[in-house]
Amino acid sequence: MQRIRATKIFPYLLTNSTKSFTAKSSHLIPLLPNRSSLAPFSRDHINNSSFLIQSKPASTVSLAFAKETMSKNQVDLLKADEDLHGGVCVELKEPMDSQEFSIRLSASLSQWRLQDKKGVWIKLPISQSNLVEAAVKEGFKYHHAEPDYLMLVKWIPEIADTLPANASHRVGIGAFVMNDNREVLVVQEKNGKFKDLGVWKYPTGVVNEGEDICDAAVREVKEETGVDTEFVEVLAFRQSHMSFFNKSDMFFVCMLKPQSFEIQKQVVEIADAKWMPVAEYAAQPFIQNHELFSLVSKICLAKTDSNYSGFSGRATTSSSGKTTHLYFNHQYCDNILSLDISH
Amino acid sequence: MQRIRATKIFPYLLTNSTKSFTAKSSHLIPLLPNRSSLAPFSRDHINNSSFLIQSKPASTVSLAFAKETMSKNQVDLLKADEDLHGGVCVELKEPMDSQEFSIRLSASLSQWRLQDKKGVWIKLPISQSNLVEAAVKEGFKYHHAEPDYLMLVKWIPEIADTLPANASHRVGIGAFVMNDNREVLVVQEKNGKFKDLGVWKYPTGVVNEGEDICDAAVREVKEETGVDTEFVEVLAFRQSHMSFFNKSDMFFVCMLKPQSFEIQKQVVEIADAKWMPVAEYAAQPFIQNHELFSLVSKICLAKTDSNYSGFSGRATTSSSGKTTHLYFNHQYCDNILSLDISH
Repeated sequence: MQRIRATKIFPYLLTNSTKSFTAKSSHLIPLLPNRSSLAPFSRDHINNSSFLIQSKPASTVSLAFAKETMSKNQVDLLKADEDLHGGVCVELKEPMDSQEFSIRLSASLSQWRLQDKKGVWIKLPISQSNLVEAAVKEGFKYHHAEPDYLMLVKWIPEIADTLPANASHRVGIGAFVMNDNREVLVVQEKNGKFKDLGVWKYPTGVVNEGEDICDAAVREVKEETGVDTEFVEVLAFRQSHMSFFNKSDMFFVCMLKPQSFEIQKQVVEIADAKWMPVAEYAAQPFIQNHELFSLVSKICLAKTDSNYSGFSGRATTSSSGKTTHLYFNHQYCDNILSLDISH
Repeated sequence: MQRIRATKIFPYLLTNSTKSFTAKSSHLIPLLPNRSSLAPFSRDHINNSSFLIQSKPASTVSLAFAKETMSKNQVDLLKADEDLHGGVCVELKEPMDSQEFSIRLSASLSQWRLQDKKGVWIKLPISQSNLVEAAVKEGFKYHHAEPDYLMLVKWIPEIADTLPANASHRVGIGAFVMNDNREVLVVQEKNGKFKDLGVWKYPTGVVNEGEDICDAAVREVKEETGVDTEFVEVLAFRQSHMSFFNKSDMFFVCMLKPQSFEIQKQVVEIADAKWMPVAEYAAQPFIQNHELFSLVSKICLAKTDSNYSGFSGRATTSSSGKTTHLYFNHQYCDNILSLDISH
């Protein structure tokens, strides 16, 4: 059976903060009042006197205390925001005892099942790593993590999940910078793949979070060599898999135009940097002997001889009003922009 | 001060399994035998009789027992593999008591400090979520998570870290498929951004882990509409930020050639699918009124009229022997491939 996934590329808006589960009485909701067949406790226990766990400091909530509260069938449900996909998101910002969390999560899950919720998300700041085990015991899986938080998720329905995939790619750039003497800006790296190989390569780097490819190329050249540049085009790009931690990467070979020429190499990562005649650069044995590198070199040389057209970037606005860069072949730009698409 | 990061795009090989810390005696190493100034215990305690925690089932290791062991200054260090960047990686595959883990991790960190190790990685399967808190207490941060494991990392040196960044982008495709009657294959989606807007759009989707863009486009069209296609070109791409969970996405608009024409729409996500005259498609108010969409439509129309050249894919081999797709402007392909780069 084909697994159905939420493979749409449009933004997965996690929460719709206008619609949140506000407490009927300080988030205190009788446990499972409607469908007794699903309830782990008999109906006799329902509507007993309540006790608000929330008001106790986390450290004072003992297991015995929690169990006593549980036996009264009154559990303070976790505060959750609805998302746009029929799910809910819990974002725990304050410290909580793991026993308390476990009981409240269990009760909340029962409630969400009754409400036919789909994906349940829990965002735990790293300061609440004490709660990870309890969430996992309730059947949550990891979705993704950043240095300061962990996102867990549980899919409630019986049908296949439509949870959005995690980020899958790192994006990198290579910067081909050539001056009017047909010299290309090259570096030798102190570490990594090219260490001690004597290979002169163009500056490369990883695109930072939230950074545009065109900006990343300019930044990397400046950082590694001190040379100011202007972004011209993406000449080619490659996609490769299993690059790091089983993830993939997209690498964009960019053409840049120098705005300054004096080299000041970065000392930590770069062993040497210089301007090198483009033919000499392309003729290096390492490049000649590796298909991908020689192909990219040929594309750069073709560009040098002005008979190659890559993709330039154009800042434009998406339907949601965000500025976004669209990269396409600007050779046809005038024709494209003047096109009347209404006929 | 500028933060120095490992921004090289080349593979970050996590472990070098040929070089692993094998135990001198069942991983039993006296704690801090060399630099007593750094040791938390006096030298008098060193070289006492040892006790091997490792041989005990995890559940029987009590805190008292562990403390007793600790007091003897003999702790069974965690098994770690060296990576290629001066760091070590611990991959815990078997269950362990969190107290035992805490003590062994603390002792191991002392040892790694003495050895001037840099990044320390801990890969915890989700079945060992009981150990997350202990690692965090030792100063570890989350690096990334997949559904079944969490990767934590700690940078030991005083200098700024050069840890590789996590995956930052999701990669998506849009598939522009046109038949010989100048009709484009369009769908209406049941969910998401275009739900109930009445917009006819071309099929879109997210590239799966390890999947090439060209294959993803063909797969999505087949899944959503049942139509077989052949990948032709990437016409344009855009990069946008803060798309989901603060991450970015790269979206590739692809031109595909239909190999079959009968439509069998996917029932879960697709409300309707049909072939629509390309002018009618481009003239939809939603597209006309949104700059990014109208620009992409114009590019597709320009391609339709055969006066636009995008990037085609070429399977090639990287220096490490992996097959990778390089996308570039094939209009110049013959010239490029015949170029002699040695002169």
